[in-house]
Amino acid sequence: MKLGMIGLGRMGANMAQRLLRGGHHVVGLDPKPEARSALEQQGGESAESLQALVAKLPTPRLLWLMVPAGDVTDATLTNLLPLLGAGDTLIDGGNSNYHDTLRRAEMAAEQGIDYLDCGTSGGIWGLAEGYSLMIGGGEAAVERLRPVFETLAPGKERGWGRVGPAGAGHFCKMVHNGIEYGLMQAYAEGFSILRHKEAFDFDLVQVADIWREGSVVRSWLLDLCSDALQKNPQMIGIAPYVADSGEGRWTVAEAIELNVPAPVITLALLQRLRSRDAESYADRLLAALRNEFGGHAIKKE
Amino acid sequence: MKLGMIGLGRMGANMAQRLLRGGHHVVGLDPKPEARSALEQQGGESAESLQALVAKLPTPRLLWLMVPAGDVTDATLTNLLPLLGAGDTLIDGGNSNYHDTLRRAEMAAEQGIDYLDCGTSGGIWGLAEGYSLMIGGGEAAVERLRPVFETLAPGKERGWGRVGPAGAGHFCKMVHNGIEYGLMQAYAEGFSILRHKEAFDFDLVQVADIWREGSVVRSWLLDLCSDALQKNPQMIGIAPYVADSGEGRWTVAEAIELNVPAPVITLALLQRLRSRDAESYADRLLAALRNEFGGHAIKKE
Amino acid sequence: MKLGMIGLGRMGANMAQRLLRGGHHVVGLDPKPEARSALEQQGGESAESLQALVAKLPTPRLLWLMVPAGDVTDATLTNLLPLLGAGDTLIDGGNSNYHDTLRRAEMAAEQGIDYLDCGTSGGIWGLAEGYSLMIGGGEAAVERLRPVFETLAPGKERGWGRVGPAGAGHFCKMVHNGIEYGLMQAYAEGFSILRHKEAFDFDLVQVADIWREGSVVRSWLLDLCSDALQKNPQMIGIAPYVADSGEGRWTVAEAIELNVPAPVITLALLQRLRSRDAESYADRLLAALRNEFGGHAIKKE
Amino acid sequence: MKLGMIGLGRMGANMAQRLLRGGHHVVGLDPKPEARSALEQQGGESAESLQALVAKLPTPRLLWLMVPAGDVTDATLTNLLPLLGAGDTLIDGGNSNYHDTLRRAEMAAEQGIDYLDCGTSGGIWGLAEGYSLMIGGGEAAVERLRPVFETLAPGKERGWGRVGPAGAGHFCKMVHNGIEYGLMQAYAEGFSILRHKEAFDFDLVQVADIWREGSVVRSWLLDLCSDALQKNPQMIGIAPYVADSGEGRWTVAEAIELNVPAPVITLALLQRLRSRDAESYADRLLAALRNEFGGHAIKKE
Repeated sequence: MKLGMIGLGRMGANMAQRLLRGGHHVVGLDPKPEARSALEQQGGESAESLQALVAKLPTPRLLWLMVPAGDVTDATLTNLLPLLGAGDTLIDGGNSNYHDTLRRAEMAAEQGIDYLDCGTSGGIWGLAEGYSLMIGGGEAAVERLRPVFETLAPGKERGWGRVGPAGAGHFCKMVHNGIEYGLMQAYAEGFSILRHKEAFDFDLVQVADIWREGSVVRSWLLDLCSDALQKNPQMIGIAPYVADSGEGRWTVAEAIELNVPAPVITLALLQRLRSRDAESYADRLLAALRNEFGGHAIKKE
Repeated sequence: MKLGMIGLGRMGANMAQRLLRGGHHVVGLDPKPEARSALEQQGGESAESLQALVAKLPTPRLLWLMVPAGDVTDATLTNLLPLLGAGDTLIDGGNSNYHDTLRRAEMAAEQGIDYLDCGTSGGIWGLAEGYSLMIGGGEAAVERLRPVFETLAPGKERGWGRVGPAGAGHFCKMVHNGIEYGLMQAYAEGFSILRHKEAFDFDLVQVADIWREGSVVRSWLLDLCSDALQKNPQMIGIAPYVADSGEGRWTVAEAIELNVPAPVITLALLQRLRSRDAESYADRLLAALRNEFGGHAIKKE
Repeated sequence: MKLGMIGLGRMGANMAQRLLRGGHHVVGLDPKPEARSALEQQGGESAESLQALVAKLPTPRLLWLMVPAGDVTDATLTNLLPLLGAGDTLIDGGNSNYHDTLRRAEMAAEQGIDYLDCGTSGGIWGLAEGYSLMIGGGEAAVERLRPVFETLAPGKERGWGRVGPAGAGHFCKMVHNGIEYGLMQAYAEGFSILRHKEAFDFDLVQVADIWREGSVVRSWLLDLCSDALQKNPQMIGIAPYVADSGEGRWTVAEAIELNVPAPVITLALLQRLRSRDAESYADRLLAALRNEFGGHAIKKE
Repeated sequence: MKLGMIGLGRMGANMAQRLLRGGHHVVGLDPKPEARSALEQQGGESAESLQALVAKLPTPRLLWLMVPAGDVTDATLTNLLPLLGAGDTLIDGGNSNYHDTLRRAEMAAEQGIDYLDCGTSGGIWGLAEGYSLMIGGGEAAVERLRPVFETLAPGKERGWGRVGPAGAGHFCKMVHNGIEYGLMQAYAEGFSILRHKEAFDFDLVQVADIWREGSVVRSWLLDLCSDALQKNPQMIGIAPYVADSGEGRWTVAEAIELNVPAPVITLALLQRLRSRDAESYADRLLAALRNEFGGHAIKKE
């Protein structure tokens, strides 16, 4: 199939490449010339504007958005929707909040445009291994794009599917990321405990590698732990500063909204917040309070 | 090699079978006649007493304990150690607390017996897929048993290793199980959130299967989630009652002892406690307190 | 001063009574005739409609809203604002979300109406002991109402104050309630631990009463614990079902929005959700998972 | 009554002083000469050795231990017990682990010595306001010491009591401190949220003072928050480093032992551990992992 890929960043460029390798035609749009020429070298076309991109696509058009979630997505849609017409299909493959997706899908539907939300997991490894795709939107539109999904996913029938109506794909990806926070934190805590048990002087890479085979905790994230530990066992030069990109906090908010207790996913998020709370006003106040009632010494700064 | 397997329960019987398949000779001991005859039918020998077992083993003897951790292990050792002599090797493959292991290894060393602690992961799947083995104890003893470990593990060089001195193996297994608690809880929370989002009417088996391919959260536990969800998507007849077998709480205690904050592993344990706290005195008191200050209605029971 | 009190429920009726006792004139509005006649018996006036209420107040008018937060507040404002004019003052004493307050204050300001948000703590005890009042809004308006606040608060200069511009009062009350969740949960956990230590057979009322004098944990909530424990030490007939009325979850959401880790307030909320999660899908799935990998028995339901 | 006070540190010196003011006779023992002479200036006697102390007390003797819990207590008892005889009474007023208390009480009983454990709350404020005393041990011994407890407590019948047999007093104090951790953390989180809401520019002292009167969260700890905030609203020079002295972690361990979920007390402890985890290996590994799968940038150190 021929499709336009809007956004040739880390994710978009890789997906375009995987599509090209799978025999599809990709017209890529990106503000950076080097991103466009990289695509061309892989056999794709490129465009310098939404207008140019749309002009290069046969109708009904097929466009894949792979831009940062939030304002950029809205800005792109504002400019793009007037260029499209009934029968065209738009796929948002980014990490959009599903509330935004519901709103955007409705906006697109008013123009007769099919809007699919495609939660996309796999990170930078997706190019080689395929992407896990959780798709929300109309059944007919998903079916029409089957060849594209079959190429992007790890296998023809594996690792992708329509999980529900508009929004369901991004909701599903949101929860996926919430789980991911919990899993990562569990491993990080475990390796930290091992490291602090100095009497046993564990080789964390060795432990990770033993666990990778046959153990109950084997997983792809554990494979990555092994990689990371091998590269830098002391984590030298890496600040204890853990970013979060939104889906974790959305999952926490959604769980509360649904009255579902999700303490592990929630605490995994809060630990990330704590990693970035350089000031730690709460801890200072606690130290001051201990001094107030018990006369306990305060550590000076 | 020829070795004695003490305890032919779920784990011991499977490990004996895997060893037999690998060309080793196994003499099994178990109070249950059917456990002994099952082993014989697979080509092993059996014994009805520790004395008989020890008599059937060539010196230096090799004995593998696969009995419930705690008192049973101590009782077995009390009876077994007087029957053994310098140069024999004892392996505790159960989920013993590493503090107990340190004490027992010392006791064995006084008799010149090598004591190895072998944390064993893989559950009922280990027979077919091999066991992940984290071994603590003397290097020479571990090296001597290499053929046994190579057979039990998923591969000759994979999934097993000596991780440190006596106690290190069980410590490592303890942390493994702590991580396991966190991972399981993260998935359970995620699927619960999906289930409660009724508007999207997710098919949880489908979601699990999509995630199993290419996603960041793919893992062996996710494979098992898919199995469990397929068998019983509504979890009908399964009480929301989650047991714990010790390693989780030991991990929590050890983390605190080491001053390592491990909130996710800890909360995963506490949620299990909560699942079994039928009375919930705390929650009743909270309801009573809300009534005290705000006049809020109490739900009657 | 003369003011209209809209809503004569548990909180509104008590506040009206305290104002009457303090020499103010109160015109009360409530759909329930018995609420209105109760006010009249205490020396107040009543009205059966917003129009009638507004007609009974001298200009510039002073109106206090004590209605359930959310839709009821908005509906009341929709009907009320057209009846008011520049110079009038509206106080929202309910537990409104501060985002709503910001919107409403702006709406009122367009008509020249002063809008104050007054976070009100004290519950059913406020009538006797006075209310803790956290007020947001214009300084001049707050100053104008000083006599009202001085009567409602526990003392002339104590327990009330303007804490900031519009929204600040409700924000402050929201955080107050978040803290309250944490405090309550801490006590409930502590008493639950004492109760489960059967060997010591603690008398929880006695313990509470010892702690009420001189201890670090003495507090008003502990006084209420003592009351509640005395009335019903076994908590018989009280379901372990803990409601939440919104401020707790807003605090959790706001903390995350501000990147402030607040694990204790958050967990206190999540435990309330858990108390109401009768189905516990997550726990069932955990039990099923343990069976999958370890063959561990499932408790039947 | 006449009693020996062993340990004239922050707590012991104040308690001796309160006893002197109450008309009791106190012989104090402390390695520091200035501690001893301070006591003498207040009308007490002092001794330079256990032998000298014991010699100055009439039989049956009454001795109060106010030394650091743990090894110091055991060392003191080892030297002291041989000097005592049947009918004497020993009170451990420190924060001993109740398991140690059970052991020590048994040891004392073998000599016919009454051993009381007296959980003591109130901190440096106890001198002026009285101490909250939770006492474990034999009824007759507690009754015999009534005059001492009545003087130390905030009132004759208030703030003290025998809560159960040996160990019950220290168990009760342990839980008291667990609750204290939860309460402190709840306030610290709340004030931190307020502080980070820069748009409202809250005056935290003012907010604390409003809450101190009439609100649901009023408490003695809140009074101390107000003090601490007033002295140093920005917490300048106070490191975000929160010590813990044992009872919190014992409470967490005991709750798990009793299968009581206590997430708030537990998390309050874990946050203290986190405040002292300067290295944060877990957070570094999380940052590395995010880079592994998503190519997300790592913050350099």
